Amino acid sequence: MTVSAELRNDLEDAANRMRISAIEMTCASKSGHPTSSTSAGIFTTSLIRNVQAPIGHACPILYAAWEEAGLLSREQVMTLRKVNSDIEGHPTPRLNFIDVATGSLGQGLSCAAGMAYVGKYMDKASYRVYCLLGDGETAEGSVWEAAAFSSYYKLDNLVAIVDVNRLGQSQETALGHHVEVYQARFAAFGFNAIVVNGHDVSELISAYETARNTKDKPTAIICKTIKGQGIEGIADMENWHGKPVPHDKINPIKARLHGSQKGKLVAKKPVNDAPAVDLHIGSIQMAPPTYKMGEKVATRAAYGTALAKLGDANPRVIGLDGDTKNSTFSEKLLHKHPQQFIECFIAEQNLVGVAVGTQCRDRAIPFTSTFAAFFTRATDQIRMAAVSFANLKCVGSHVGVSIGEDGPSQMALEVPIKIQTCPSSELFPDQQERRSWLRTSGESFSFSSTRTTSLLFYRLFQVLKESGNDKIVLIGAGVTLYECLKAAEQLEKDGIHACVIDPFTIKPLDQETIVKHAKRVGGRILTVEDHYPAGGIGEAVSSAVADHTDIRVRSICVHEVARSGSPEELMDLYGISARHIVEAAKKF
Amino acid sequence: MTVSAELRNDLEDAANRMRISAIEMTCASKSGHPTSSTSAGIFTTSLIRNVQAPIGHACPILYAAWEEAGLLSREQVMTLRKVNSDIEGHPTPRLNFIDVATGSLGQGLSCAAGMAYVGKYMDKASYRVYCLLGDGETAEGSVWEAAAFSSYYKLDNLVAIVDVNRLGQSQETALGHHVEVYQARFAAFGFNAIVVNGHDVSELISAYETARNTKDKPTAIICKTIKGQGIEGIADMENWHGKPVPHDKINPIKARLHGSQKGKLVAKKPVNDAPAVDLHIGSIQMAPPTYKMGEKVATRAAYGTALAKLGDANPRVIGLDGDTKNSTFSEKLLHKHPQQFIECFIAEQNLVGVAVGTQCRDRAIPFTSTFAAFFTRATDQIRMAAVSFANLKCVGSHVGVSIGEDGPSQMALEVPIKIQTCPSSELFPDQQERRSWLRTSGESFSFSSTRTTSLLFYRLFQVLKESGNDKIVLIGAGVTLYECLKAAEQLEKDGIHACVIDPFTIKPLDQETIVKHAKRVGGRILTVEDHYPAGGIGEAVSSAVADHTDIRVRSICVHEVARSGSPEELMDLYGISARHIVEAAKKF
Repeated sequence: MTVSAELRNDLEDAANRMRISAIEMTCASKSGHPTSSTSAGIFTTSLIRNVQAPIGHACPILYAAWEEAGLLSREQVMTLRKVNSDIEGHPTPRLNFIDVATGSLGQGLSCAAGMAYVGKYMDKASYRVYCLLGDGETAEGSVWEAAAFSSYYKLDNLVAIVDVNRLGQSQETALGHHVEVYQARFAAFGFNAIVVNGHDVSELISAYETARNTKDKPTAIICKTIKGQGIEGIADMENWHGKPVPHDKINPIKARLHGSQKGKLVAKKPVNDAPAVDLHIGSIQMAPPTYKMGEKVATRAAYGTALAKLGDANPRVIGLDGDTKNSTFSEKLLHKHPQQFIECFIAEQNLVGVAVGTQCRDRAIPFTSTFAAFFTRATDQIRMAAVSFANLKCVGSHVGVSIGEDGPSQMALEVPIKIQTCPSSELFPDQQERRSWLRTSGESFSFSSTRTTSLLFYRLFQVLKESGNDKIVLIGAGVTLYECLKAAEQLEKDGIHACVIDPFTIKPLDQETIVKHAKRVGGRILTVEDHYPAGGIGEAVSSAVADHTDIRVRSICVHEVARSGSPEELMDLYGISARHIVEAAKKF
Repeated sequence: MTVSAELRNDLEDAANRMRISAIEMTCASKSGHPTSSTSAGIFTTSLIRNVQAPIGHACPILYAAWEEAGLLSREQVMTLRKVNSDIEGHPTPRLNFIDVATGSLGQGLSCAAGMAYVGKYMDKASYRVYCLLGDGETAEGSVWEAAAFSSYYKLDNLVAIVDVNRLGQSQETALGHHVEVYQARFAAFGFNAIVVNGHDVSELISAYETARNTKDKPTAIICKTIKGQGIEGIADMENWHGKPVPHDKINPIKARLHGSQKGKLVAKKPVNDAPAVDLHIGSIQMAPPTYKMGEKVATRAAYGTALAKLGDANPRVIGLDGDTKNSTFSEKLLHKHPQQFIECFIAEQNLVGVAVGTQCRDRAIPFTSTFAAFFTRATDQIRMAAVSFANLKCVGSHVGVSIGEDGPSQMALEVPIKIQTCPSSELFPDQQERRSWLRTSGESFSFSSTRTTSLLFYRLFQVLKESGNDKIVLIGAGVTLYECLKAAEQLEKDGIHACVIDPFTIKPLDQETIVKHAKRVGGRILTVEDHYPAGGIGEAVSSAVADHTDIRVRSICVHEVARSGSPEELMDLYGISARHIVEAAKKF
């Protein structure tokens, strides 16, 4: 495609105006990323002419682009990084044109792949997704997880733009300006990989055109650029990452303006050919559970059943798994609604990243599942999902020493608190269909994490056992709740009555119920968990009652790196079985 | 290299005996991975003839190999997955021939690269490192982080062996038997990539020979294999992952034995040409800190100074960073001792994995550093490091809303508890040279995590302020400790005396000191932290005093997704500044 001299001038002028603006706003905030913004200037310009694109890398240039397009004012962008401004240091969805928060590197391509997957297979719409990556960022393995996913699913509506400006934060990147190596890597991962001069508008526009005409493959445009392009004494020099540029350095860039009119470059209105989507699941659409009282059902089997029912109720409920669908039972959704399931293979960072991408702009309700232990691989993605206020459900199976023979690498004794820390998350210590159904049948879907375990349970309710003679409150979750019930029976035979509470969620914790019952029984709470002490149920309960002088809490849990064995042996070995609960209760 | 018919028969027999053993032991344990073990049989055999190699994939075959070599007895391997046996479901260093625990996929190559780095650059010894990977496992991005690292550092003593048996746990892998794609990917990541028939001994031995003769490049041997090789009705079939194989299926394998003698295949004794290493750092070797009382010093600057001094004291103290060395100040070690520093670029999973590899067999004491937020990327690697009982130090900088303008993606409000959950870890809420020195000058180095923050601090001591009239205990860490001191001054002016405690470590927590002072002041503790509530100081302290009825704890901390702004503004906005502490103390 040839580009007219006029368009070329217009685009170059816009890029230079944006560079100037990015430098000025980072001068005002005394921090930020002006040099990366200058290397990324021209492809942001050439993009904005055509599309809406989610960008995190070098975000001052993103804000400058929206200023150029007339959607942000000069006054607004000059509030960069101020406490009362949504023009933040790294972009977040507090701005309505940002779909996902970025700033932790290497996560963008997974989110973009999730958006592209929905565009191609669910919306069947014409929109295209562009993702800008820094060169240093491609060292993150999550980029290659996303790349493999994108080519496997033939996402030809996805374009990765790599800004190869040679310089990282502290030194030259591992590959420097070897664009041919980036090209070989993306090609090997199934991309149509094109190398261009990232400061040449014609080459860029031509590459976008090639991408648009490429079928069944995503495209990677490898842009050779200069960090700090056009700024004398700074261009291509180390030690300028994340630092404001002296104000007088703008003059040479100003001198290169052709004089085209500011604001002339208007973003095309997007074509909206995506279908309207209703994410509401009314309780009327959901068949209630059909389990009989007293029936034993594996929580993971119940999860699969509930997920399949949710899939019946709304075609935008989707399941994503990391090659464990026959263990987590998410395959029940796959078998019933194949088009509502995305196999993500053994790449948990991308599993979560893709899910975050699918839920953008309320296009889908993603449920991700794998072994709980392996969700730790995606901790950073889950953390950033919370910053994005994402509607994400992570369902981890196989929790605790009670999984038995597979050994400590699979036990997830460290898991719950990782997700618990995210401020808008909820944490379910274990999960059954009834609960899953309760929590997802309303109109509002919040960011939540649900754990399933692989043992069988009775169907249990919040306060499971109480009497007027109770002397202690026992609190467990999942398998340990079952042990608490066994212990309570034993204690009753010995004349000690115990109240057993299922916390249902660890976060938020039902503080009121716990305090009420604790006061009633004389202030004794014993928590029991198949988890390490730090950040578990014991600490949560202790913290919830910390302001009450008449309540004491003791906790039993796993204290050392666990090992392989049968579930029963391990629960006894690590001191969390009924026998140990009885002993601790009597001592208390 | 040609292989004699006799050697070929011997190796094939050994492989078949090992397959039989792997099937029998998984029959006995009623779980495990026999089918992957059969695909991996022959290259384990051909390896054991030559080398010692760390292997996690399909570990029954690993145990069978050690049995074949006479290091484990038949009785021992038949205890696979039993609670009183160290022959665990996934291997851990409870066995003295295992250096790192595996079982969480995609971590092995990073550890192997760390071992190879030490071998090539520090030990300058002849040993070679072989790492066996499953094909499904290569979907993990961490594999590509490790691959990029290995070629960047020209680790020609490293061999990756990929078992392409086509089948994952729940379905065919993304690449099936397309060995040419694996080859292209490893080649693009700088490996000498060779494709072989993974069931042909000659091809394998020839590939090892090629690897040995390849200079300045790591080698990848892509083995096309059949999962469940040699087992009728199971070979190359889905749905057999992680399940025991019926006992009578062994007969056809038995029939293929040439009759060579068991135990004939003896592992060569390794050549030990690595230097003796002493990791001891006596306090006499360490120059004490030279800060003056009242002097302000950034904790991260103090960290860099301390690290460089540790580097002076012992040449096996090494620093590893993820392109943030000019922010974490680990570059102070680089500048003083370039040979004791490994730049790992922006790939935090590999950063931690390589560090774990370097500390194996007590060859080095690795200190890893990056922004604390980005350590979340390596949560799973840190989790597995604990299962490996690794001597690992992770030092995260830039913690809390007090980092200011960079915004929530960089604040690490969720971090400490992730590391805290690991049972053998310690957690330092902030860190100064004196402390670092104290903690590392002894003979014993434990797995620990140290956080630095990027603000300036006074040099502070454990109980920082106390008097006979104290009415409340204030506990903070890092910036909030400083705010506690400011608040205590203000409260004193209003006639309320406060005791201020620096917890020094959050885990282990000095329960005794806290309880003693709390009782002294009438049972009032106020904790203040620049962190989310879950898993933070408030919960830890609440839990530590939960069994005392005369102590109450209230906590102030960050409760919502934070935003960009100046440090002072943000600390005030989120309610953790001195003003809020004074208010809360008065209310209490």
